[in-house]
Amino acid sequence: MDDVRGAVKPANEKVISPAVIKRLPRYYRYLGDLLKNGVVRISSKELSERMNVTASQIRQDLNNFGGFGQQGYGYNVEFLYREMGKILGLDKTNNIIIIGAGNLGQALANNQEFASNGFSIVGLFDVNPRLVGMAVRGVEVYDIDMLEDFVRDHEVMIAALTLPKSKAPAIAEKLYSLGIKALWNFAPVDFNLPDDVLVENVHLSESIMTLSYRIHSRN
Amino acid sequence: MDDVRGAVKPANEKVISPAVIKRLPRYYRYLGDLLKNGVVRISSKELSERMNVTASQIRQDLNNFGGFGQQGYGYNVEFLYREMGKILGLDKTNNIIIIGAGNLGQALANNQEFASNGFSIVGLFDVNPRLVGMAVRGVEVYDIDMLEDFVRDHEVMIAALTLPKSKAPAIAEKLYSLGIKALWNFAPVDFNLPDDVLVENVHLSESIMTLSYRIHSRN
Repeated sequence: MDDVRGAVKPANEKVISPAVIKRLPRYYRYLGDLLKNGVVRISSKELSERMNVTASQIRQDLNNFGGFGQQGYGYNVEFLYREMGKILGLDKTNNIIIIGAGNLGQALANNQEFASNGFSIVGLFDVNPRLVGMAVRGVEVYDIDMLEDFVRDHEVMIAALTLPKSKAPAIAEKLYSLGIKALWNFAPVDFNLPDDVLVENVHLSESIMTLSYRIHSRN
Repeated sequence: MDDVRGAVKPANEKVISPAVIKRLPRYYRYLGDLLKNGVVRISSKELSERMNVTASQIRQDLNNFGGFGQQGYGYNVEFLYREMGKILGLDKTNNIIIIGAGNLGQALANNQEFASNGFSIVGLFDVNPRLVGMAVRGVEVYDIDMLEDFVRDHEVMIAALTLPKSKAPAIAEKLYSLGIKALWNFAPVDFNLPDDVLVENVHLSESIMTLSYRIHSRN
C-alpha cells in the first residue's frame, strides 16, 4: 500500500517516487555509521561502493531534495545525516503506541534503535490480563479498554498493530475513529480505511514466502 | 537486495521480475482466505476488486506462470491456491533456524501462520545462558556453540537472524561456511557475502522511517 498522495513536493514541485522514499532510510543508516566512524566527508562514488548502488542513483535520489553535495568535495557526512533526518521527520515527536503486547509487540518496545532515531514508544495495549500492568523497557502495558482515554490524553502519532489478523481490522477502525492516521501494521491483513490513513505494512509471512520462492526457483 | 539471478524461467524463458515475485504471497493469502470462506471460483475482476489491484495486472502476473484462468469461468480458487503454493515452494520442506532467541526470535517461533504454510522452525540459538534450554512452542533454544553440529545433523534451508547488528555479520559468514544459502535478516546491516547467498531483509527501522517520512511530508 504505497501511498504517494502525501509525497513531498520540493520547490520544483517534483513528486518523490515511492522507490526513492524506500531508499532514504538506508542512506540515513549508512550516514549514521560513517558519522560514528568519524568520517567527515564522502564522495558519491565512495558512498556508492559502500552501499552497492550506483553513484548516479545516489546523486539523483539526493537531488530530489536539493542535492547537498558540492562538486569536488562530495558530501559533508554530518550535515547530510542531519538533513536526511529532517526529511524523514526524525526531528519531530514521533510517539508510538503498540496494540498487542505479545513477543512481537515487546520486541518493538525493546528495540533500542527506534529510540535513538526519535521514535518513542509511549504505551502498549493488550486484552490479556497476564500482560496488563507489566512494563517493557519502562513502558506500561495497558488494558485495551484504556485506549480511548490514553489517546485523548497523549499525542500519539503512530499505532503499531502486532495482534492477530482476526482482531486487527476492528482495532484499525477504532484507532481511525480516535484520530490516529498512521498505522504500522504487522497483521497479515489489508484494511478498508479512508484515504487519509497511512498504512505501512510489515507482512512477515509474505517476506518469508518471497525468500522461499527465490530458494526453490534458483536452479 | 533483490536478486533476480535465481528467477524462474518458465517454458517461454521469461524472467520473472522482483515486483511480480513480491506480489505472489499476497495472491496466495487472498486465495487462502477465499478458500476458507468456501469460494469455489472467482473472476479476475472480482479478485481485483478485493485486492485493490487491476484485473489486467492479475492476469499479467499469473500469465508469467502459465495463466490458470479459463475464459468465461475465471479461476478455480483451490487449484490456483495450490499452484501458487507450489510456485512459492511451500510444498517443499522449509526448515528454519533462528539465531537470536530474544523477543523477536520468539515471536517468529510462535507465529502459527508460518507453520500452516509449511515453514518449520527446527531450532533457536542464543548466547544467553538464561535462554538456552528454554522451549518456544516446543522448539528448543540451543547454545550458539551447538550451531555447527546442529546444521550438520539437520536439513536447514533458511536461517533467520534476529540478533544485534554488531553480531550479525560474523554469524552470517559462519552460516555461509556451514552451507546455509538463504538468510532472513532482521538485523539493520547489509552483509558482504558471495553471490550464491539469498538474503531477504526485514529492516524494521527503515520501515518505520518510511512511515515517518510519509506522515511528515503529507501536508
